[in-house]
Amino acid sequence: MSSDVLLSLSQKALHLLQEDADKIEKLIEVQMENLTTRKCPLYEEVLDTQIYGLSREIDFAIRAELITESTGKQILVKLERNLATLYEAMELQNKG
Amino acid sequence: MSSDVLLSLSQKALHLLQEDADKIEKLIEVQMENLTTRKCPLYEEVLDTQIYGLSREIDFAIRAELITESTGKQILVKLERNLATLYEAMELQNKG
Repeated sequence: MSSDVLLSLSQKALHLLQEDADKIEKLIEVQMENLTTRKCPLYEEVLDTQIYGLSREIDFAIRAELITESTGKQILVKLERNLATLYEAMELQNKG
Repeated sequence: MSSDVLLSLSQKALHLLQEDADKIEKLIEVQMENLTTRKCPLYEEVLDTQIYGLSREIDFAIRAELITESTGKQILVKLERNLATLYEAMELQNKG
């Protein structure tokens, strides 16, 4: 019974973190789609702030032993990879 | 048994959040003590960033139902009150 509670809490925690990561993913996608039509210098700062916030949530969940360090890292690595792709595309755009 | 696990997880979560709040409290105290000796313009930004990070941890803990909304709010309200006192003291210092 006690491990069931822990499992369900861990799953809930992971679900919440994934939800927040998906919101940032959506922000990155929107910016990718609008690359050619308009520029918004604040976007970079918003994305950085959101990712910092999520990294604090993930760090807390790891310390509370709700998720493993490896799971937490995976969520962030995926986001940072997409963010890097966005920044590369923005740079190409600026050069073109 | 299952409620024991929940209780211990809630206590752990609260302990972790309080630890982070204490670190910010310490930053505020240090700045208060150094009010007359030196100025550091980055301090304000560091404090804001730390409090934002903590607020994201607290929000996550509330959504994961590890702490109540009221407990989470109490931690932030106390910090924000001390931060306001610091800013008032900094303003007086600038005028003097």
